[in-house]
Amino acid sequence: MEITAFQQLMEDLYGTADRERGIPATVAWLCEELGELAQAVRKGSKDQQVHEFGDVIAWVATLANQMGVDLTDAVERYAVGCPRCASMPCACA
Amino acid sequence: MEITAFQQLMEDLYGTADRERGIPATVAWLCEELGELAQAVRKGSKDQQVHEFGDVIAWVATLANQMGVDLTDAVERYAVGCPRCASMPCACA
Repeated sequence: MEITAFQQLMEDLYGTADRERGIPATVAWLCEELGELAQAVRKGSKDQQVHEFGDVIAWVATLANQMGVDLTDAVERYAVGCPRCASMPCACA
Repeated sequence: MEITAFQQLMEDLYGTADRERGIPATVAWLCEELGELAQAVRKGSKDQQVHEFGDVIAWVATLANQMGVDLTDAVERYAVGCPRCASMPCACA
């Protein structure tokens, strides 16, 4: 799936409800989901991990929609190498 | 950009270094980046917001690489509607 298509899917699914809830509430919910991911990484099953990765990506995308940020633009600076050292693979270490 | 291609790009850029650092350290770094995103959402410029969204997505992807999770699989359950109510748009509220 294209990043753009996924971001649009999140808009279609949750855009109206998320805008009514507001940006601070969406940030709070994203933090909650990251906590669930951290727990699944530490002690969850593979299915739980897959589930929580999906939820975190979904909340990042719906927050980006509320902020008017295109996630494809956001990841673009990684496409030509590490944004800090400009190397591929990264040579920062 | 395809989600799969971005995840592979993160593997090519950071896979070796991130595996050496280890999973708990990657979780910690992802949390740090989420904090930076939350701050940028609250009081950052548009450029800073775009930057932090990119970083969060990058750290989610490199953590997924370490966990052997395919992010395309992870978001698949959203493709046919809300995973909870099965409606498009979501009717959970």
